[in-house]
Amino acid sequence: MARKPSPKKRRGSPEGSVVVIGLGRFGRALALELADEETEVLGIDENADIVQALSGSLTHVVRADSTKEDALRQLGVHEFERAVVAIGTDLEASILTASLLISFGIDNVWAKATSEAHGRILTQLGVHHVVYPEHDMGQRVAHLVRGRMLDYIEFEDDFAMVKTNPPADIIGLPLSNSAVRTRYGITVVAIKRPGEGFTYATAETVVEADDTIIVAGRTRATERFSELQ
Amino acid sequence: MARKPSPKKRRGSPEGSVVVIGLGRFGRALALELADEETEVLGIDENADIVQALSGSLTHVVRADSTKEDALRQLGVHEFERAVVAIGTDLEASILTASLLISFGIDNVWAKATSEAHGRILTQLGVHHVVYPEHDMGQRVAHLVRGRMLDYIEFEDDFAMVKTNPPADIIGLPLSNSAVRTRYGITVVAIKRPGEGFTYATAETVVEADDTIIVAGRTRATERFSELQ
Amino acid sequence: MARKPSPKKRRGSPEGSVVVIGLGRFGRALALELADEETEVLGIDENADIVQALSGSLTHVVRADSTKEDALRQLGVHEFERAVVAIGTDLEASILTASLLISFGIDNVWAKATSEAHGRILTQLGVHHVVYPEHDMGQRVAHLVRGRMLDYIEFEDDFAMVKTNPPADIIGLPLSNSAVRTRYGITVVAIKRPGEGFTYATAETVVEADDTIIVAGRTRATERFSELQ
Amino acid sequence: MARKPSPKKRRGSPEGSVVVIGLGRFGRALALELADEETEVLGIDENADIVQALSGSLTHVVRADSTKEDALRQLGVHEFERAVVAIGTDLEASILTASLLISFGIDNVWAKATSEAHGRILTQLGVHHVVYPEHDMGQRVAHLVRGRMLDYIEFEDDFAMVKTNPPADIIGLPLSNSAVRTRYGITVVAIKRPGEGFTYATAETVVEADDTIIVAGRTRATERFSELQ
Amino acid sequence: MARKPSPKKRRGSPEGSVVVIGLGRFGRALALELADEETEVLGIDENADIVQALSGSLTHVVRADSTKEDALRQLGVHEFERAVVAIGTDLEASILTASLLISFGIDNVWAKATSEAHGRILTQLGVHHVVYPEHDMGQRVAHLVRGRMLDYIEFEDDFAMVKTNPPADIIGLPLSNSAVRTRYGITVVAIKRPGEGFTYATAETVVEADDTIIVAGRTRATERFSELQ
Amino acid sequence: MARKPSPKKRRGSPEGSVVVIGLGRFGRALALELADEETEVLGIDENADIVQALSGSLTHVVRADSTKEDALRQLGVHEFERAVVAIGTDLEASILTASLLISFGIDNVWAKATSEAHGRILTQLGVHHVVYPEHDMGQRVAHLVRGRMLDYIEFEDDFAMVKTNPPADIIGLPLSNSAVRTRYGITVVAIKRPGEGFTYATAETVVEADDTIIVAGRTRATERFSELQ
Amino acid sequence: MARKPSPKKRRGSPEGSVVVIGLGRFGRALALELADEETEVLGIDENADIVQALSGSLTHVVRADSTKEDALRQLGVHEFERAVVAIGTDLEASILTASLLISFGIDNVWAKATSEAHGRILTQLGVHHVVYPEHDMGQRVAHLVRGRMLDYIEFEDDFAMVKTNPPADIIGLPLSNSAVRTRYGITVVAIKRPGEGFTYATAETVVEADDTIIVAGRTRATERFSELQ
Amino acid sequence: MARKPSPKKRRGSPEGSVVVIGLGRFGRALALELADEETEVLGIDENADIVQALSGSLTHVVRADSTKEDALRQLGVHEFERAVVAIGTDLEASILTASLLISFGIDNVWAKATSEAHGRILTQLGVHHVVYPEHDMGQRVAHLVRGRMLDYIEFEDDFAMVKTNPPADIIGLPLSNSAVRTRYGITVVAIKRPGEGFTYATAETVVEADDTIIVAGRTRATERFSELQ
Repeated sequence: MARKPSPKKRRGSPEGSVVVIGLGRFGRALALELADEETEVLGIDENADIVQALSGSLTHVVRADSTKEDALRQLGVHEFERAVVAIGTDLEASILTASLLISFGIDNVWAKATSEAHGRILTQLGVHHVVYPEHDMGQRVAHLVRGRMLDYIEFEDDFAMVKTNPPADIIGLPLSNSAVRTRYGITVVAIKRPGEGFTYATAETVVEADDTIIVAGRTRATERFSELQ
Repeated sequence: MARKPSPKKRRGSPEGSVVVIGLGRFGRALALELADEETEVLGIDENADIVQALSGSLTHVVRADSTKEDALRQLGVHEFERAVVAIGTDLEASILTASLLISFGIDNVWAKATSEAHGRILTQLGVHHVVYPEHDMGQRVAHLVRGRMLDYIEFEDDFAMVKTNPPADIIGLPLSNSAVRTRYGITVVAIKRPGEGFTYATAETVVEADDTIIVAGRTRATERFSELQ
Repeated sequence: MARKPSPKKRRGSPEGSVVVIGLGRFGRALALELADEETEVLGIDENADIVQALSGSLTHVVRADSTKEDALRQLGVHEFERAVVAIGTDLEASILTASLLISFGIDNVWAKATSEAHGRILTQLGVHHVVYPEHDMGQRVAHLVRGRMLDYIEFEDDFAMVKTNPPADIIGLPLSNSAVRTRYGITVVAIKRPGEGFTYATAETVVEADDTIIVAGRTRATERFSELQ
Repeated sequence: MARKPSPKKRRGSPEGSVVVIGLGRFGRALALELADEETEVLGIDENADIVQALSGSLTHVVRADSTKEDALRQLGVHEFERAVVAIGTDLEASILTASLLISFGIDNVWAKATSEAHGRILTQLGVHHVVYPEHDMGQRVAHLVRGRMLDYIEFEDDFAMVKTNPPADIIGLPLSNSAVRTRYGITVVAIKRPGEGFTYATAETVVEADDTIIVAGRTRATERFSELQ
Repeated sequence: MARKPSPKKRRGSPEGSVVVIGLGRFGRALALELADEETEVLGIDENADIVQALSGSLTHVVRADSTKEDALRQLGVHEFERAVVAIGTDLEASILTASLLISFGIDNVWAKATSEAHGRILTQLGVHHVVYPEHDMGQRVAHLVRGRMLDYIEFEDDFAMVKTNPPADIIGLPLSNSAVRTRYGITVVAIKRPGEGFTYATAETVVEADDTIIVAGRTRATERFSELQ
Repeated sequence: MARKPSPKKRRGSPEGSVVVIGLGRFGRALALELADEETEVLGIDENADIVQALSGSLTHVVRADSTKEDALRQLGVHEFERAVVAIGTDLEASILTASLLISFGIDNVWAKATSEAHGRILTQLGVHHVVYPEHDMGQRVAHLVRGRMLDYIEFEDDFAMVKTNPPADIIGLPLSNSAVRTRYGITVVAIKRPGEGFTYATAETVVEADDTIIVAGRTRATERFSELQ
Repeated sequence: MARKPSPKKRRGSPEGSVVVIGLGRFGRALALELADEETEVLGIDENADIVQALSGSLTHVVRADSTKEDALRQLGVHEFERAVVAIGTDLEASILTASLLISFGIDNVWAKATSEAHGRILTQLGVHHVVYPEHDMGQRVAHLVRGRMLDYIEFEDDFAMVKTNPPADIIGLPLSNSAVRTRYGITVVAIKRPGEGFTYATAETVVEADDTIIVAGRTRATERFSELQ
Repeated sequence: MARKPSPKKRRGSPEGSVVVIGLGRFGRALALELADEETEVLGIDENADIVQALSGSLTHVVRADSTKEDALRQLGVHEFERAVVAIGTDLEASILTASLLISFGIDNVWAKATSEAHGRILTQLGVHHVVYPEHDMGQRVAHLVRGRMLDYIEFEDDFAMVKTNPPADIIGLPLSNSAVRTRYGITVVAIKRPGEGFTYATAETVVEADDTIIVAGRTRATERFSELQ
């Protein structure tokens, strides 16, 4: 489908602006993070209190029923190139809204799913990116609950980054001497001295006992490393 | 509080085992991730269907009302050292449950919060780690919606890791020659050839056009880098 | 998608058998009509009373929650080649069910829609035939309300068949002499003598005053003809 | 009951105008179809949104509680000669409304029934025409689900018209030569060339492989014919 | 409709037996009064507690859904000659039940109405006697509230019977001398001495100050008489 | 309690005026009957539609919450001498209202009860007259259902008046000759010729076959008499 | 009312035994306190969980609907001499139950009221003692909130007892010398040394700084005294 | 936490003023008792009717949602030194409100608990004083139900004060002669002559038969004493 930016479009939805529908915990955090980085955001929610609370923080916030085609068209939603359906608990509203966005031909539609079935339907409708916040955070927190990691993220199957405290046997010597790659199968990526921010670790970096480090590697390797004392 | 492992305790809750209360999307993903890594998990939910669906996947799954002290004690919950309150939508049940876990003197109580007020109460009760999945994922996805990043994670204020496609001007030459650190303020941490897994990038690594890379750096720097073409 | 009939399949869903999900007014009439013509039908509904009332009338009738993949698979629904989603009032259940049927790769999925939005979603999911009973019958009855037609059906845009009483000026003479095609733009297709069934009209048929006739033609032409006295 | 058109009546409800009460899917389609053919329609519904959405499309649309005699009289409903009760889900409202229309002495009252019991009550009240959209469409669609028919309508017990693709053995020769009446017990009534509309079939008509045809005949005969290859 | 008592009928519903559907305050009092006078009664209610409480007091009491034809037929309701629909608050159930009784061809159907519209529908359905307890008792009590009457009943428009205390000027002399008919337009019909029952008043009856009397006459006359001192 | 009419009282509630609280079927009929006879009535109901519908028919009708002392006092209810609590379905509101009226010291409080327990509570609170419309009408209608009576009323235990058609053996001769009192234990009180009103029967009255009569007597005697042919 | 203990009664409800109806916070505390002092208690509640939880703690605990006369009689409630209606939130159930107890002629009926209107109705029904826990505790706590009192109770209008810390100027000398009665208008009634219980204060008692004392006197006097430093 | 009264604070919440949140039975009685003693009170409730009813009785009464931080700050609640959470039935609102008050650093927070779990949570949040009105009054009333006490209060475990009628053997002689302390283990603290108030009892006080007395002593001793005749 050819969708050349019309003059009207340029005014209504400047290059890069995003419409976020549903301003609960997920949608709000997403919209505010975008706004912090000076992306223009049109926020839409059915709840007047929520709209009221966010007015001033986003470029535009309006109260509307996103399941109605007329309502979305009046707001120019069909002219956006990026849209996020952040409606959480109301499966029907999520689907009706996503269906409309797809029928508008929007190029990048993101949507939050709350179950496998929800995600499958969104994909079948043609949504481009489906996100599962509860599920993904559940998996991520599992790694923290079990042990000594301070933070954990899996970028791809079997490749994780972990924030942790350094084990005793790498303390006090340059990373090039600690042989973490051969002994533990991980790489120290970054290091944080108390009271400072993270910086990249180099071969010369000497890790101290009260530093925090980020290590990369295969999932099991990062976990075993973080359990060393 | 001195809580020496009693003989009974050793049987009831082996070192490292975790009780997960609330098996919705977040709790389920968390519990299954733990089980995948051979951690013993006691899953508790009020919903018989959910319990039924997870039996077989977790060490123990039982249906119980976690807001009742008797129910928790009968399950030996007071003898665990790690507990997660993954109850989401029912604020009252979340608080009643967390209050009981704290009164048991459990050393590591994690709880999911759905709002700032919820999080504040959990902290005042004495919960050790409060998690906000919707909020955190909202922030993370914001970075993906805006541009070309494939994944994004902020480990600490102003230190992010980003999965992205490499820009044209670092392709075809060793990383040591691409000067990304001086030119863009980022480090290439890992690289993935099509059809392979991620491996650590070294100074000799030559990035090809269809590779995927992970870069680390200050938040804005990683974003600017991912927007290069 | 290649779906060769497996041995199991032949037993589970004989050639031509149909699964009908939702046994309200529409689904029940549909299922019973199929059963009357000796098509094997698997009827599914969540309501035990409805299932009870139809047992004996259909090949199989079971109570199940059609929004659950497990429930459908246990009934072998994924092996059918024809399925009808006749769920009416519960939009969410209709969509969840249709989504599963499509994900099973069933070749012919029919679904009833209760609104334009519902219909659009079903189409986006990949449903092959969407039916609007209320809407279609509303249009059809409109023609009967207005005037003297006894029944009306539009087979295609602007080509209708109408059951009506014959106007005075075609009575008593062979159809070939009545020139209805040139004078009114219609053809008399069938004729019914009092107390008999319909038979095809021929050029020699002589229409009597108390006969009922079926005429074909463009929509407006059939309407004008039925209003003659 | 003698109800001579009073002067007031002529103004309030011109000859042929129709009041449609209940503007859901069925009533709306019915009312719009009438309006398309320039019949004056008074549409009534309790729902302000529905009334708002149809204003402009019908002669008059008003929001009113049709179960109240005063409300109907103020709208002049008692002076109409044709009325349709298209209220669907609220049995009580349907009955109360129909009861009032009958008590007004309206000559032609149509009403939609959603169950056998509903239909029996409407008939006992004195409603002149009772319609069962869900049931009738269910029966009609049954014939399409089973096989190769494109459309199906039964005008009377055991006399149906079917839209279908022509079987191989009638292709390429004039209908008079194909002997469909003797061989299959059906008559080809109309034919549609690709890209054209339907026209009446004559003895000279030659059916091509990609034509669509309408055939008339006894129900089973039309079905068998449509299943030929 | 000819409905000759069949042998089966004689057993199922002996001459004079009554089916009472709905055993709330009205139906229960009605059924018990019938039972007190040795009429056979079949009582039907949906509420198990009510059925339980009346078992033993009526010939038969069963729990059934009277809106279902099957349920009524299984109880032989279609063979009764007298039926009372005493369902009060559920308009729909009252109408569905009455419709079935009429469709059975029962000769004497009584039904309680709770509003004018309800009464009109029952009459249109063909119910033979419609009763308005709340309305009728309201009117009757109005006369008691206003003044000195002890009881009041209007048998027909403008002909009432009133129980009252005698006014001073008829005390102590035979009724034939009191000229109540000419002076007040009423007749003293019955008299009750303290501690005794009512007996008919005759011309010789002498009314005493502490007697209670029943007088008949036109409505206003009985009221004026009861207000005398 | 001495309650001398104060000047304020005379204005607020003229001698004989009545306050009726609750304007459902019972209260409305009661209030309108009072109004018809020119009694001043203050009607009170919580429902604005009901109040609106009766304005104009009663002296005063107001919307108020009769369970609040302030609301009743502002309307001067405490100054009335006659009050009716006609609240039906809401037991709590009935009791709260009656309790307030009793606490005001009103001399004549009537209240409608919907159950024995309700009636007992009203009596314990001090209500002067408790009425059971559903129960009383149920008993009365029982007599009509059973047989040939046209109307029936029991004025006291075992003394009834019955409207009925005359049996054959009293037709055509003066009542004094028919010996109904000795033969049947009843007295003919009044008689109605076709097309006329009721008048008192005398010894000379000759009953005709198509007259309607009212007879008085012991309950069983009146019933047996009405069953004669 | 003479109610001599019948033999049956002696068994059913021994002298001094108490029936407590409603086992929420108030009723439970009351019943357990009675049971602690070896009073026989029959506890009644509608909630099976509550009954289950108290079985073993009270003489008898049963689940029953106390608004039904039959239920209470089967439990022998009519033979008790002391009964407490501790039903709190359900006004209707409280009134129905109290009405039954009064109708049984029980000599001592206590009931908890949750509002003034509730209390008035209970009194009008004939309940002997009406208690307002929320109201009374609210008043009592008010005194503690304001200042330095440790506990406060008003035994009668303007005569209170207060638990407080002693002011400086009565410390170290015998009470007879401290002149608290003349200087502050209060009497020191009891004294508690740290780690001991209360004992009566005498003229010789010497109050120390870390004692707790109870003083009696007029309300304002006790308050002023407790605010001394 | 040092919280010196700021100038703003002095105006907003004068020394000793109290904020009472929740104005049901408990909160209202508490607030009115404070107001009676000229303490400044800010009353807060969500219910407009309750706020309306108390305006004029308290220094300030406002309608607000106390679970919202903004709402409380706008009212200056964070500047008070004494606060009472008197919210009863809504556990969640009680906890959210208490959590905010604690987060404000208010020095004296009182809260009403309706269950043990509720009380534990309030304590864990940091609430300084938790009150259980229903429970405490239940215990207190238990003593009155059992016997002859007129009032009862336990100031500490096993030290009670009881209002009662004097037993025969202490009547007519000075208290010093009655030896109640040695014989019964109690002290007579105060005495009330008919028609007068309480005064302190002294050794010379002579108790008369119709006096009321208050005695202090160990719980069982006071009870035994009150049961003497």
